[in-house]
Amino acid sequence: MLHGLDQHTNSIYAPVQEGLVKVEEKLRSLAKAETSHVKPLLQYVTEAGGKRVRPAITLLAAQFHPHDPARPVLMASAVELLHLATLIHDDTVDNSPLRRGRSTVSNTWNSHVAVLFGDYVFATSATFVCDTQNIRVIRRFSETIMELASGQLMEYFTAFDPVQARNLYNDRIYRKTASLFCTASESGALLGEAPEEEVQALKDYGYNLGMAFQVGDDLLDFQGDPTDLGKPVGSDLMNGVLTLPTIMLLERYPNDDLVPSLFQDPTDQAKLQKVLEVINNSAILADCEQVVQDYCDKARQSLQILPDCAPKQSLLDLTDYVTARRR
Amino acid sequence: MLHGLDQHTNSIYAPVQEGLVKVEEKLRSLAKAETSHVKPLLQYVTEAGGKRVRPAITLLAAQFHPHDPARPVLMASAVELLHLATLIHDDTVDNSPLRRGRSTVSNTWNSHVAVLFGDYVFATSATFVCDTQNIRVIRRFSETIMELASGQLMEYFTAFDPVQARNLYNDRIYRKTASLFCTASESGALLGEAPEEEVQALKDYGYNLGMAFQVGDDLLDFQGDPTDLGKPVGSDLMNGVLTLPTIMLLERYPNDDLVPSLFQDPTDQAKLQKVLEVINNSAILADCEQVVQDYCDKARQSLQILPDCAPKQSLLDLTDYVTARRR
Repeated sequence: MLHGLDQHTNSIYAPVQEGLVKVEEKLRSLAKAETSHVKPLLQYVTEAGGKRVRPAITLLAAQFHPHDPARPVLMASAVELLHLATLIHDDTVDNSPLRRGRSTVSNTWNSHVAVLFGDYVFATSATFVCDTQNIRVIRRFSETIMELASGQLMEYFTAFDPVQARNLYNDRIYRKTASLFCTASESGALLGEAPEEEVQALKDYGYNLGMAFQVGDDLLDFQGDPTDLGKPVGSDLMNGVLTLPTIMLLERYPNDDLVPSLFQDPTDQAKLQKVLEVINNSAILADCEQVVQDYCDKARQSLQILPDCAPKQSLLDLTDYVTARRR
Repeated sequence: MLHGLDQHTNSIYAPVQEGLVKVEEKLRSLAKAETSHVKPLLQYVTEAGGKRVRPAITLLAAQFHPHDPARPVLMASAVELLHLATLIHDDTVDNSPLRRGRSTVSNTWNSHVAVLFGDYVFATSATFVCDTQNIRVIRRFSETIMELASGQLMEYFTAFDPVQARNLYNDRIYRKTASLFCTASESGALLGEAPEEEVQALKDYGYNLGMAFQVGDDLLDFQGDPTDLGKPVGSDLMNGVLTLPTIMLLERYPNDDLVPSLFQDPTDQAKLQKVLEVINNSAILADCEQVVQDYCDKARQSLQILPDCAPKQSLLDLTDYVTARRR
């Protein structure tokens, strides 16, 4: 079993177990090759484990046609490294001391080191993608980094604004999350020599899975996340970040002052508890669960044109995993 | 005349004037295409002007053979954008309020925005490089971002260490400065369809010019830089950064306690003045000038295999410009 995985993900990952072991080796070999000050930093972030969902998607998406297996492994490693780089910078700008119970780079070292080391990891991920020799994949990867950064900037600039339409929320979560899921599945398909129609199908799968993943993640902020040690319920709201449950509340009661009033005074625990209470006592969370289910359904439908096989079953099972991880 | 250039650089840039105007248009078109929160940030950094030395090198290096002129323009724009991205992050981690008399991004907005926007600019530069369609150039570009980041990390981790050999200094300034000069000239040559021998020659030119540029820049910290508004003499030393003059001092007086004592107490102005005085009263600055000259000589020698023509003369003249800008 790969380090850090539960029984559930481990069975989903079975068809690409070998590839995932190679990804792990590739990530760890980075620190081994370094002699400089970067070595302990690389060890710290690559040996932390993680669910490796994104590289698994890349590898699974590559399994439908005969191909050079080294290229999806390179891409899967790049996708995971890019994810790690964004976490390093996100935790830095958010001043987060912990991520999943472990001290962040900016907390263990400092923000000076975390900014520069994040740049280093971004660039390292790009060299892996270059080694796939596929220009379309390389360009898509660069665009994804732009989307990730602009999604985070969008979240920052719209914070504490209680008037945000749902389409802006959708655009924001596409950029900050679904874009990389999309790139993970699309690039896997391309490097797995899939025909264009299947590339589009697997890209759609990644998009919908990523959207489901982020809406689900945003829901956890209202329900409490048993796996996310130390993150208090309602922390998005306290940081002024509007997510789907609150947007639905604002859609239903456009003239209500509850959320605008909280955003005027975000440290007021009584106001926060009131918003959480109203949302929890409404049908909103169930409606959000339905949005997650709808995205998962679309993800599954995207795969219809693909032949039934173990990798396809794993991609289908991943949509259940996204839904189930909150229970 | 291009905005921000003096008469001297303007005559050097004459053979690539048209290309530089296109680079300027390309940089400014980024903000025009954006409708989001990124637009004012892009305007702020692309309309600030600058000497555009790096894109000029790329364009000049491409002039020796018939080629598609769009590709060096893309690369030159990418090289300048990458330079701008590194400035955004460097100013953020150094908490610099000003750069060349103008408020930095982190000072005008804040470090949160500057980190994420820097990522966005890094990624944008990479998309430009992708559009050259040349995998070797794309990979070299990613490696350069790694070198830039690791050079800055090296500077951070070795700060206030008074025992640093000259080869470590050379490695550090290669990474933080000469690497991008190298990539500017090498990629220009490659996209200018130069044969491998000339690519290597132009790469060597970029390396030596970049090393001369950084040693010269480090010298300015001891002599005072008339163009760099507000940066006090001796600021590298106050920040614990060993550069060539101080390394030469330590080489000559390995048992002297002056520098170690300053690094114990870097805010002590009397100790700082003493180190500056000893260096200024020795032959050290003249010897450093000689190092700059030696690098410039090597840069000029690298060009010997190239035919005499206006672009070659401009590259030769640039070495004089590097030497002259401190007078």
